[in-house]
Amino acid sequence: MLDSLFRPRSVAVIGASAKELSIGNRIIKNLVDFGFKGPIYPINPKADEVRGIRAYGSILDVPGDTVDVVHMVIPARFVPQAIADCGQKGVKFVILNGGGFAEVGPEGAAIEQDCMDRARENGIRILGPNCQGIINTDPEVRAYCNFTFTRPDPGAISIVALSGGVAEVIHQAFSEMGVGTRMYASNGNACDVSIPEIIEYYGEDEGTRVIVLYVEGLRESKTFLEVTKRVAAKKPILAMKAGRTEVGAKAAASHTGGLARVDMSADLIFEKAGILNFMDEAELCQAAVAFASQPIPRGNRVGMITNTGGPAVISTDIFANAGLEIPPLSERAKATLEAVLFPEAAIQNPVDVLATAGATHFRAALDVMMDEDQVDSVYINMVTPFFVDTESIAREIVEVNQASKKPIVCNLMTDKRQWTGTLRLLMDGGVPCYGFPGTAARALVALARYNDIRCRELGEVKRFDDVDRDRAAGILQKTQAAGREFLTAAESYEILAAYGIPAADWRIANNAAEAESAAAEIGFPVVVKAESESILHKSDVGGVALGLRDGAAVRAAVERMEARLDAPDLRFLVQKHLPGGLEVIVGAKAEDELGHLVMFGIGGIYVEVLKDVAFKIAPVTAVEAREMLSAITMAPLLEGVRGAKGIDQQGIIEVIQRVSQLVTDLPAIQEMDLNPLIAYEDGVFVVDARVALIRSQ
Amino acid sequence: MLDSLFRPRSVAVIGASAKELSIGNRIIKNLVDFGFKGPIYPINPKADEVRGIRAYGSILDVPGDTVDVVHMVIPARFVPQAIADCGQKGVKFVILNGGGFAEVGPEGAAIEQDCMDRARENGIRILGPNCQGIINTDPEVRAYCNFTFTRPDPGAISIVALSGGVAEVIHQAFSEMGVGTRMYASNGNACDVSIPEIIEYYGEDEGTRVIVLYVEGLRESKTFLEVTKRVAAKKPILAMKAGRTEVGAKAAASHTGGLARVDMSADLIFEKAGILNFMDEAELCQAAVAFASQPIPRGNRVGMITNTGGPAVISTDIFANAGLEIPPLSERAKATLEAVLFPEAAIQNPVDVLATAGATHFRAALDVMMDEDQVDSVYINMVTPFFVDTESIAREIVEVNQASKKPIVCNLMTDKRQWTGTLRLLMDGGVPCYGFPGTAARALVALARYNDIRCRELGEVKRFDDVDRDRAAGILQKTQAAGREFLTAAESYEILAAYGIPAADWRIANNAAEAESAAAEIGFPVVVKAESESILHKSDVGGVALGLRDGAAVRAAVERMEARLDAPDLRFLVQKHLPGGLEVIVGAKAEDELGHLVMFGIGGIYVEVLKDVAFKIAPVTAVEAREMLSAITMAPLLEGVRGAKGIDQQGIIEVIQRVSQLVTDLPAIQEMDLNPLIAYEDGVFVVDARVALIRSQ
Repeated sequence: MLDSLFRPRSVAVIGASAKELSIGNRIIKNLVDFGFKGPIYPINPKADEVRGIRAYGSILDVPGDTVDVVHMVIPARFVPQAIADCGQKGVKFVILNGGGFAEVGPEGAAIEQDCMDRARENGIRILGPNCQGIINTDPEVRAYCNFTFTRPDPGAISIVALSGGVAEVIHQAFSEMGVGTRMYASNGNACDVSIPEIIEYYGEDEGTRVIVLYVEGLRESKTFLEVTKRVAAKKPILAMKAGRTEVGAKAAASHTGGLARVDMSADLIFEKAGILNFMDEAELCQAAVAFASQPIPRGNRVGMITNTGGPAVISTDIFANAGLEIPPLSERAKATLEAVLFPEAAIQNPVDVLATAGATHFRAALDVMMDEDQVDSVYINMVTPFFVDTESIAREIVEVNQASKKPIVCNLMTDKRQWTGTLRLLMDGGVPCYGFPGTAARALVALARYNDIRCRELGEVKRFDDVDRDRAAGILQKTQAAGREFLTAAESYEILAAYGIPAADWRIANNAAEAESAAAEIGFPVVVKAESESILHKSDVGGVALGLRDGAAVRAAVERMEARLDAPDLRFLVQKHLPGGLEVIVGAKAEDELGHLVMFGIGGIYVEVLKDVAFKIAPVTAVEAREMLSAITMAPLLEGVRGAKGIDQQGIIEVIQRVSQLVTDLPAIQEMDLNPLIAYEDGVFVVDARVALIRSQ
Repeated sequence: MLDSLFRPRSVAVIGASAKELSIGNRIIKNLVDFGFKGPIYPINPKADEVRGIRAYGSILDVPGDTVDVVHMVIPARFVPQAIADCGQKGVKFVILNGGGFAEVGPEGAAIEQDCMDRARENGIRILGPNCQGIINTDPEVRAYCNFTFTRPDPGAISIVALSGGVAEVIHQAFSEMGVGTRMYASNGNACDVSIPEIIEYYGEDEGTRVIVLYVEGLRESKTFLEVTKRVAAKKPILAMKAGRTEVGAKAAASHTGGLARVDMSADLIFEKAGILNFMDEAELCQAAVAFASQPIPRGNRVGMITNTGGPAVISTDIFANAGLEIPPLSERAKATLEAVLFPEAAIQNPVDVLATAGATHFRAALDVMMDEDQVDSVYINMVTPFFVDTESIAREIVEVNQASKKPIVCNLMTDKRQWTGTLRLLMDGGVPCYGFPGTAARALVALARYNDIRCRELGEVKRFDDVDRDRAAGILQKTQAAGREFLTAAESYEILAAYGIPAADWRIANNAAEAESAAAEIGFPVVVKAESESILHKSDVGGVALGLRDGAAVRAAVERMEARLDAPDLRFLVQKHLPGGLEVIVGAKAEDELGHLVMFGIGGIYVEVLKDVAFKIAPVTAVEAREMLSAITMAPLLEGVRGAKGIDQQGIIEVIQRVSQLVTDLPAIQEMDLNPLIAYEDGVFVVDARVALIRSQ
């Protein structure tokens, strides 16, 4: 538990300094200025006091049994010994604000390891190194254990990021938008206390209503997924991952010490966990402001109230593009509005109350929207004309906002220097206000997106019990024991058979005669493929013969391969040639500790040219498999176009689930490509399969 | 010319009011507060003075020969007479601030028409009605002819929008970003003075460095295109069109009086004119701030200077996604930086000068970036640590900014309430500062996009002189004279022939015998299609026979059609059947006054499922036609994929240009579909053509 870190009863600063512009001084200043509720202990062998607070020569001299949090602002090489000292004092958390650790190279990494070893020996947890620290604005705590400069205000948003720079950008943004934060943590090199731990802690903190996360790469991805899934189910997590491009990842690597890389698994993890994913940090912050004060809407239907036309058009576009609806008003609602609003007002959705509308008009429109069953959220677009009493309007909005279970966001078009009273009323009343119609609309879209996530039913992972795990595992073990990386075709098909994944009928033949009779059993036309542990790229060496229509053709093909290929274990895979149908691809790929990603696409140029594929993290439920089919651009081809018949989507969904179970059961599989499966109206069949195992180290 | 509107020597307000909260009072207040340089004449028969300024009973009582601008803030029904009075006084411009005109329905529209008639009779121009008015911050003018509330500061950005609400959002945004405006115009119903006129005027105004435009629909699209093309070639126009979705367009229609609709032509017009198109009004405003003070970069290569890691990663992603480069530094540059920066600094691009960097370090990095030939623009990512002298850093940035021909944008991560001095120095020094790394990066991307536009070479429209315009026009006239909307196949092919557009070889036959010998001439296999003015959908009635391999088959096909189809003018199109090849589509479509849009796509499911098509406005140059081929998602198919050969792209480009010339020469064509053309490695041939004429009214 991180309670002693985020709710410290006492804080010491090793390296406390009397020099005004030093970090060792700033932390004390921040703690004092912010009104930290516990004692502060500057540690400095050469000073009697720092900022008027009594200083101690050593952490061991500090009064009392223990210190909850100790900042260390001393050169890296002195840190391990200082940690050992803290151990003696029973310190719980050490925040390493300074640099000179893993981020500077091997020498620093060795010091970092030394710190970790000493910390473990002494039961101490480390935040950092190379980090800003934490903030907790809880009035009972007021811990500004951090050397940054933004003045925190109490609020409901908690921030976590490895990067202190971005954490600070986000924190500052909330401050400028007049919204406070609850907690803040930037853990730098993150050698010990991790992002998932912090998120878990925020999840349990009652004062945290929304969690904002910035990452450049995900470590401990499996733990991250497990934790965030649990937390996101009870409170919104808004996240952004940077380093998405190759150069971006390179830039990230250069300041985090080579940890970041371009990977799509972050997006998949966010999706599976139910994290709201943002591509723009400003949009993330603006959305968080709405989450901080507003309830989650129950649906996608927006009621719009405006007192000027154009800006409402901009937001309408955004709602429509995001799939939000702007439903017509009920007759009863229209009648109510007609009785109250000006005759020229637009009695529809958006309601245009007109620029001349006053408090009564706005209130009537708000009440109608709150009362309408088919409205889930309210978007207010309010310009502040000099000829109306905007403060009275603001009071009505605040009153409705505080009584309402439907979220309200407001695009407030005003001169903040002149309409200070109106602005203050709305902000203090918890109405999220934005300066652009699009910005306000996107914040509302984010609320609705979270509702979609909260309501989604991904279902349970289905375990097929007709599978023969042991048989498949045996094949893999045999392959691994032989030191091979790739399974032969026969081995691959046997594994598919063990997991109930349908393939075109096949036989293994040792010679031409066996091949001929196998083909007769299967039925013509057939395909013959050379089968040998030593032949990897069959078609390159003439090891594939397609469309063989009779026994003689099969015999001739086998004899040609026998003459051409020099492999002691040469055998022949005879397989049913399947005409027509739609080529699709199902694949899987091990993704480090995360497990496997499962892939679906339509074969040929769609995958090659369009890169039109969908991924999910295994294990995949039926709902997720269905989403994969819908996610690709060429999805209409699955339904049938231009007279072509639709194909057996349920069959593909089952193959995806069975592949998911297979790679989850047998993590030794590095990569698996069923490419293609031939899909018909009433069935799908693998006609080529490739399975690679994780290379033994 | 709009000089008297934007640089009025005198302003009168008909409907001037002593009531503080009325528009007729506010306009006078705005003029007075802003320090208007000319006389102000309140017109009010019942008042001696308004806001301490002498009032007159009628415009005719005002001293002097004339008044440049007259605001009218009186009920709509009194406006026509007031305009007539203004005529007597020699007034040049009338600004109709009030509503009650076309936007409220037919009655208002009649009044609006009456106003227009009176204005024309009297040589008066009208701005509005239902509009805010104009602002000109030129110190020699200081005309705040407007009832809105944002306090204008002189600057270099001029704003124009029909919607007063959005114009005000934009104006307010600049004010909040501490950047002034040059001119401002919101023309409401726009019954007379138009957006293109205003843009043309801004184009000639020396004080306007960048033009910001917001529209919901484009009227006078051809004029708009011509004007903006001219203006955008000399100064940047940044624009946004809202009402892009069906509901958005509906919302726009409801406040502008039914003028807006979802159309893609705005995007095509913006593209052709060289207007920078934005989808987000906040991004537009933020970009405009950079254009207001910064030069246009000469290329896409960004030099980055940062004093903290994470935010630079975010901007790097944005640059990479936008196709901007972050080139490596020269050895010389690195040596310079190594000599000056801290040993731990990252000597690369991005340069990480470290949070501890002071003015010398920043200056060295800036000088290096300005000196590097392979750097076109500079992105600064600056956090303001409390332990460095950020004001000195700001001074260096400003000095370099003012001397530099390379643009600088700055992501300034600070608490604006505390670092006021630093912020003020940068703002006053013309350094565009933003509060999010992504926001700053996007502003720089916009500068680079404008450079791309400025450097583009669309080439000249090629006029093919081997065409027979008269022959094609004759066919159209004949069809129109016969009251037909669609051309027959033979007519269509004749027009294609007249314009040198290659088609599969064809003949017209009157009967089976003629068809048989035509087929023999063409060479088998052939296609036979029934040809009659009365048969529109041939394939529905059995009027198409494909793949006829010999004379007997042709004869049989014709005889079957003769038996089945009852058309007195029945004839038969015999055409070469073309096997293989890639099906592509070239089309054209009349788009109101704008002229024609020309379309290209790859046939079949790509058009039907993917909607993978590209449009341009005719006339189309070879460069534009080439862009159309590259613009589609499936463009790689044109190059050949999976062993397929590439096709004759030059041939398609020529077809597009010839179709463009055809529809430009013959505007009577409503729609033309060459669907498909069969494209081979060495030629393209139309195998089905459909031409529709503009319906005579």
